[in-house]
Amino acid sequence: MKIAVLGTGVVGQTLAEKLATLGHDVTMGTRDVANALATMGNGSYGQPAFGEWHKNHANIKVATFADAAAFGEFVINATNGMGTLNALEHAGHDNLKNKILLDVSNPLDFTHGMPPSLWVSNTDSLGEQIQRAFPDTKVVKSLHTMNAYLMVNSSIVPGNHTVFLSGNDVEAKLKMRGLLITFGWKDENIFDLGDITTARGTEQILPLWVRIMGTLQHPFFNFSIVVGRPPAA
Amino acid sequence: MKIAVLGTGVVGQTLAEKLATLGHDVTMGTRDVANALATMGNGSYGQPAFGEWHKNHANIKVATFADAAAFGEFVINATNGMGTLNALEHAGHDNLKNKILLDVSNPLDFTHGMPPSLWVSNTDSLGEQIQRAFPDTKVVKSLHTMNAYLMVNSSIVPGNHTVFLSGNDVEAKLKMRGLLITFGWKDENIFDLGDITTARGTEQILPLWVRIMGTLQHPFFNFSIVVGRPPAA
Repeated sequence: MKIAVLGTGVVGQTLAEKLATLGHDVTMGTRDVANALATMGNGSYGQPAFGEWHKNHANIKVATFADAAAFGEFVINATNGMGTLNALEHAGHDNLKNKILLDVSNPLDFTHGMPPSLWVSNTDSLGEQIQRAFPDTKVVKSLHTMNAYLMVNSSIVPGNHTVFLSGNDVEAKLKMRGLLITFGWKDENIFDLGDITTARGTEQILPLWVRIMGTLQHPFFNFSIVVGRPPAA
Repeated sequence: MKIAVLGTGVVGQTLAEKLATLGHDVTMGTRDVANALATMGNGSYGQPAFGEWHKNHANIKVATFADAAAFGEFVINATNGMGTLNALEHAGHDNLKNKILLDVSNPLDFTHGMPPSLWVSNTDSLGEQIQRAFPDTKVVKSLHTMNAYLMVNSSIVPGNHTVFLSGNDVEAKLKMRGLLITFGWKDENIFDLGDITTARGTEQILPLWVRIMGTLQHPFFNFSIVVGRPPAA
């Protein structure tokens, strides 16, 4: 499948590499291609900066947001949540029309210091904002409740644990479920919560995620929804 | 131990009954004792109304918020989140001074319809509001991320799953941990997140809890934090 990954940070890199390994034709989208490819040394999380990383991933094409979105049959938003709506405007309404847009971003707000708060929450979500701004695009929110490495390597956390799915389009969520299974997720651990408004719930667990990471001192954990039975009456 | 349970709804009933079964001396606190005992028939969640319930739980005393708080060495806030701060004012600062206050309430806001939103979230929490209003009280936030029946019957959800703990006072959290163990929780499943500001994270998962309950059509599930290992370098 022709897949566009918008965003060249660690999340975009991790997803693009996995998708290419699975045989997809991947183009990464960025604001300024020359600038992105010129970044060397280490990125903000200690991973190689994009230019450095791309030297070893030359099979992955790099293009503007618009050219990448035009290329992809399936588009992934892996940009920083703060810049997501702007990045998607650059990607362009026509280039996103009728396509599935997987949104893995979070509306994390670091302007009040650490730990981050959310700049949209409670009665709205970033997933919903994207869906409202791009009504002809099939927005699916998923994979945003975990570390990037875990997204594509679910077995680094043992046993059963959960990846959530929100979106208005049932077919789009089925396609997304299929992609998650190729990433190594078990079907029974993919939890479809319903329409895109349910992204409020999952985006709002990010502050807890951040606190758990602070306690564990590493990000290699996940939420699991464990279901029991009603007690005997 | 002498324990006050403030609030006579299903959460208060469930906790009071379990505590009495464990041999604690329990007094429930309410706004108007005569009114509370006069409620008959079914309560709002289909459980017996408080007066009906109390007929079969006569070993549990009922008093005003103030008298119950004065009685308790350990106080549990199981009032409706919307009325919690007011109920605690009625309980009285002197009656709560230097005591542990377990807060199991949630700031759910039903005024915008279903599913509920939160009337405090993101950069603050109800747990923090209580701690600020009662600075001489040791507020511990716990058990609020699950159904009342599950709080005291953790085994109805199979395997490992998590109960969170937030609070500024380390001794108070140790006492709370001890109480949780008598409720049937395994020590390894009690996740101490840190100070009371971490209640932001746990209160904010309530909207997701509500959506999951909507999908499952029952409340007998729990969150589990499943921890893996960092990938080999």
